[in-house]
Amino acid sequence: MTDPLPTGATIGILGGGQLGRMLSVAAARLGFKTHIYEPGANPPAADVAHACTTAAYDDAAALTAFAQSVNVITYEFENIPTAALDILEALKPIHPNREALRISQDRLTEKDFLTGLGLQTAPYADIPDADALTAALGTIGTPAILKTRRFGYDGKGQARLMSDADAPQAITDMAGAPALLEGFVDFSIEVSVIAARSASGDVACYDPGENIHRDGILHTTTVPARLSASLRTDAVLLAARILNALDYVGVMGVELFVTPSGLIVNEVAPRVHNSGHWTQNGCAVDQFEQHIRAVAGWPLGDGQRHSDVVMENLIGDDMDRVPDLAATRDTALHLYGKADVKPGRKMGHVNRIVR
Amino acid sequence: MTDPLPTGATIGILGGGQLGRMLSVAAARLGFKTHIYEPGANPPAADVAHACTTAAYDDAAALTAFAQSVNVITYEFENIPTAALDILEALKPIHPNREALRISQDRLTEKDFLTGLGLQTAPYADIPDADALTAALGTIGTPAILKTRRFGYDGKGQARLMSDADAPQAITDMAGAPALLEGFVDFSIEVSVIAARSASGDVACYDPGENIHRDGILHTTTVPARLSASLRTDAVLLAARILNALDYVGVMGVELFVTPSGLIVNEVAPRVHNSGHWTQNGCAVDQFEQHIRAVAGWPLGDGQRHSDVVMENLIGDDMDRVPDLAATRDTALHLYGKADVKPGRKMGHVNRIVR
Repeated sequence: MTDPLPTGATIGILGGGQLGRMLSVAAARLGFKTHIYEPGANPPAADVAHACTTAAYDDAAALTAFAQSVNVITYEFENIPTAALDILEALKPIHPNREALRISQDRLTEKDFLTGLGLQTAPYADIPDADALTAALGTIGTPAILKTRRFGYDGKGQARLMSDADAPQAITDMAGAPALLEGFVDFSIEVSVIAARSASGDVACYDPGENIHRDGILHTTTVPARLSASLRTDAVLLAARILNALDYVGVMGVELFVTPSGLIVNEVAPRVHNSGHWTQNGCAVDQFEQHIRAVAGWPLGDGQRHSDVVMENLIGDDMDRVPDLAATRDTALHLYGKADVKPGRKMGHVNRIVR
Repeated sequence: MTDPLPTGATIGILGGGQLGRMLSVAAARLGFKTHIYEPGANPPAADVAHACTTAAYDDAAALTAFAQSVNVITYEFENIPTAALDILEALKPIHPNREALRISQDRLTEKDFLTGLGLQTAPYADIPDADALTAALGTIGTPAILKTRRFGYDGKGQARLMSDADAPQAITDMAGAPALLEGFVDFSIEVSVIAARSASGDVACYDPGENIHRDGILHTTTVPARLSASLRTDAVLLAARILNALDYVGVMGVELFVTPSGLIVNEVAPRVHNSGHWTQNGCAVDQFEQHIRAVAGWPLGDGQRHSDVVMENLIGDDMDRVPDLAATRDTALHLYGKADVKPGRKMGHVNRIVR
């Protein structure tokens, strides 16, 4: 294990969206500088970063200069091209590690990894072609969801099958991309565990939050989740098992379905997670600082919940509600400074403290 | 009253120290960009700001360009030269207003203002020269403190008089600057009220904190302060009276002595205040965001205390304690990213949550 990064050092962050923005603020709180790497111009994170490189992920010179300017590298999203990682990793440490990225970049690899750990997932099958889908529907049945193995988020790259007749359209929707069929899981609620593991192997989990989605995008996370004490313990132990198996350093979001047969892992994200935004107003040390602490080789901070919170995403026209929300008691606003309001675009979130 | 500043607008901040840095983070949280104006190179605030101008306060061209690039102007310190304010104010609104700056830039004007409002202060006298000091010592007595009327902070520009014999040295210490003699106040504790007033005239105060100084620099602030309910109410009403009298917009720090004859105003600062740093971990909306909300014409936020907090400043070599503090429960670190550790320099602070 390496020495803790001294305050004043620079943390490189791949991705300049809202997660990179909030990571950058957390890093500053510990006295670190940040350098953002982002292909898009004027990213939200640049407003609160020491430096920002605007360059593509296949720009070897820019990647090299970026890596040389920082002490350690982390990221706000998991779909970083392998070739970029090869360049960066040769120059500076990257946390969370390559194995965590490899697992989470491919839904099939991820499911195989999770079931290999003895954890429950939805029934699934590899779907390289239409024939495989026909065969898989025979065992998994409908309703089911066909998902691209790679590069999906917020419900994108997914096709729902209510009957076998939907199979041709679903295959067309995948546009030739390798896919995975997931069977239907009859769950009561979805919860997520935001788990952190330090470089020295300590694990700390925030209280599980209960998630509600709308149109495939997270709508609210409520803490505490309606979980029995034993399921809460199961959730936390399960998350710790995943982190340990990956020798993981950083924060991970673990989405779980609560079913009559126990917890089923929906998916894992090797980064800070939208369902952990409540920690900003519920804990002394939020998920962003916890991630920075881990990446910097620092001890984990105090993630004990001091307040119950309902986090709600502000999406697209929800921004029209900001004046009212700003005047509402027990309400903490977090806006991302994005110039253009677009339907489905995450513009901010609000944490309501429940007293 | 003007319309609320829309998210995405730019707030100009005069001064790039730790207060400007934390104001900048708070502004970003509401989706604002910030532009820092600071004579010193690489100021702490620049790490978390959209833009930073490095120029002197007598650089008219730089001041003009700065003002033209922002929507509204605020500041982290009160000693802004009048000529600079003249240039800036002709171009963009400045909050808090000129009157608040005029009052707080001069200890004599401030005392006259406070006593004019019917508030109690320490006994004081204008000391233009040595003869005036001799006369004032006759009425005020010793111990007493001779202070420069302008540009003092953290105990600088002050001379303590234990007897009349200290007068010549004290006059020498002032180096010809206009000064003020303050009589000794026999107080049990010092508290401060962090008060905010919005553009529409709403006033909100945080719970008073109890301050302990070391070597003339704030050491700790503990919330709640040991105040009776009636004194707590007095403190808040008194702060509100000051804000209303000034038609003030923003956050003000009001330092009070608790004495047998009630509350005595020590001094006011027309800005966010070191004794309000506890709000970062004690409230949903901290003093920095409250200030930004006021300056931007937004409604004030929720400053209710959810946790008891002890704030401790990290000064100079206190930075050696950071590794231990980082591993301590119920502890939130806030470091300023200053490159050089110097004796007496504020390097960060720590908020301990008391459960």
